[in-house]
Amino acid sequence: MPFLVAIAMALLIFLQSPQELPAASILMVQAQKTFDAIPDTPPNHPENPLTPAKVSLGKKLFFDPRLSASQMISCNTCHNLSLGGVDHQATSLGHGWYTGPRNAPTVLNSIFNIAAFWDGRARNLFEQAASPLENPIEMASSDPAICNILISIPEYGHLFEEAFPDSREPICFTNIRKAIAAFEITLLTPNAPFDLFLKGSEDAIGSEAKRGLALFMDKGCAKCHMSMNLGGNGYYEFGVENKPDQKYLPPDDIGRSAILKTIEKKYVFKVPSLRNVALTAPYFHSGSAWTLEEAVEVMVQSQLGITLPPSDRQAIEAFLESLTGKQPEIDYPLLPRATEETPRPVH
Amino acid sequence: MPFLVAIAMALLIFLQSPQELPAASILMVQAQKTFDAIPDTPPNHPENPLTPAKVSLGKKLFFDPRLSASQMISCNTCHNLSLGGVDHQATSLGHGWYTGPRNAPTVLNSIFNIAAFWDGRARNLFEQAASPLENPIEMASSDPAICNILISIPEYGHLFEEAFPDSREPICFTNIRKAIAAFEITLLTPNAPFDLFLKGSEDAIGSEAKRGLALFMDKGCAKCHMSMNLGGNGYYEFGVENKPDQKYLPPDDIGRSAILKTIEKKYVFKVPSLRNVALTAPYFHSGSAWTLEEAVEVMVQSQLGITLPPSDRQAIEAFLESLTGKQPEIDYPLLPRATEETPRPVH
Repeated sequence: MPFLVAIAMALLIFLQSPQELPAASILMVQAQKTFDAIPDTPPNHPENPLTPAKVSLGKKLFFDPRLSASQMISCNTCHNLSLGGVDHQATSLGHGWYTGPRNAPTVLNSIFNIAAFWDGRARNLFEQAASPLENPIEMASSDPAICNILISIPEYGHLFEEAFPDSREPICFTNIRKAIAAFEITLLTPNAPFDLFLKGSEDAIGSEAKRGLALFMDKGCAKCHMSMNLGGNGYYEFGVENKPDQKYLPPDDIGRSAILKTIEKKYVFKVPSLRNVALTAPYFHSGSAWTLEEAVEVMVQSQLGITLPPSDRQAIEAFLESLTGKQPEIDYPLLPRATEETPRPVH
Repeated sequence: MPFLVAIAMALLIFLQSPQELPAASILMVQAQKTFDAIPDTPPNHPENPLTPAKVSLGKKLFFDPRLSASQMISCNTCHNLSLGGVDHQATSLGHGWYTGPRNAPTVLNSIFNIAAFWDGRARNLFEQAASPLENPIEMASSDPAICNILISIPEYGHLFEEAFPDSREPICFTNIRKAIAAFEITLLTPNAPFDLFLKGSEDAIGSEAKRGLALFMDKGCAKCHMSMNLGGNGYYEFGVENKPDQKYLPPDDIGRSAILKTIEKKYVFKVPSLRNVALTAPYFHSGSAWTLEEAVEVMVQSQLGITLPPSDRQAIEAFLESLTGKQPEIDYPLLPRATEETPRPVH
């Protein structure tokens, strides 16, 4: 009989009005079923095993502006590791002062995304790395041009030999991208307050963030923004319930539909990760929402088709704030010295 | 009698043909009279005392692209600390993809220069910092715009309070430049092989570099390139003996003469430091000589009015190679987080 009373009480707690905060332990269990904590160490990648030599080389390449035609733009220019792995531009500035069509996503925790780019057109970081290097309005270089630069720098020759001891031709576009991807795989931000909560620390996030987490799961945000990266693992139409203003969804960018050559569903994009989202404004593929408040409001309307009172949206923002993890500590690399054979910048 | 023989022998050694290398100890004494070693720690600056809080803030500002109008260009973009404090451009790319008129000098050891810029128009690093920040084809920002950016970022507010505890208005253009200058003052490269030689280690530089050092002093290079920075402490006409090709000396840039409003002597420039010169190609205010070989050849002709056989120029190059010191170790800074009040990039 006391057992049935306990069951009834638990049910009562569970079915209480949504304004009420579920007991933290129930919330924690529910969250643990939906999300995963960022690990402290990078995952294994059998097809591109991480070795210290390869990661160290990849870091140098990531920071080396000589990989661009102008020799002024590095991977880090748009994926700035001092700024949460982004550039705080609506869409990035690149070669020739041209602006690209989409917002640069953070490189942090990007290994846990299903694919790269807003339209998922690169299967992984290795495939991704080629695109900005060769895009004429980004780094504007090319496979042979980059190889020529690196081959002209003897110290890079040694570093590639150490990183790729089994390669007959260590400096090649494949290995360049493998090394960059290897470094990027290490760019994790573990131990966000929310991760500590997921790992059992009830007090790691405050009551407002907890209420936001409950709303985030109950209202449907977590249907897309789930798992390790709270997103990054699927594709959805932007405007599945209500088409957002074209400020947020420019009509000429149909997203993944252009890749899949489908026309029945336009404006499909990869669900972005919400990890470190408080650091990575502006938001959306268009980089058009400059605050979390605005982004949450647009999402609630366009993706959930509901309205939420400001207090609930603020609670969700408080939860999103709890997703900021420990940023990678980077020793700024000294880059190998050019020689007189090194090709010169092209503007 | 044996005493007089010894004197005679010493004189013979001293007066031997210039092709012969002077005994290292004599060379060392001669070098010690002409040059000084880079110290391990930065000098005191009573008017801008270095404190850990100020240097740390200055480092963040140095790396923060939000100090530029586009929010894409930081001090480090052109004075890249992973590349010897330079950008390897003939003249730097800046806002709007415009190129500036002169080559960006290294920021390393710049505290030991008599003044800043090729024309010496800024008396020190503090004065210098304003110019690229406000130059419309460099960072293209302004005193109020930069202050507004920093004031919008609460963490910067705390950091400025810590760095300038006596300031009534900690975030101001004066303090911004003081902090950047304080960081730059710490950017020393001690213990180059030549410094170790100056400090008494005979074998720190090889015999070719020693022969180059002797030539460097005997032929007259050291008349301008002397003291701690082997330059940076005076002004000379470029072409004092023979006017160089206009590729090296573009006719429309008359240098310091435009600052001093003198017309009797055109083309006067600050003698650049040769510290780390092997890392800082291309050379001259025009950034027009891409190798040490070319730069030495032009200097010998235009400034000394002589010719030297290739073997002597190579020896001088070997000496210049010995001027590469230990580069600063930098923990790449995490930058304070912007807020919704932070002004947005302007392209």
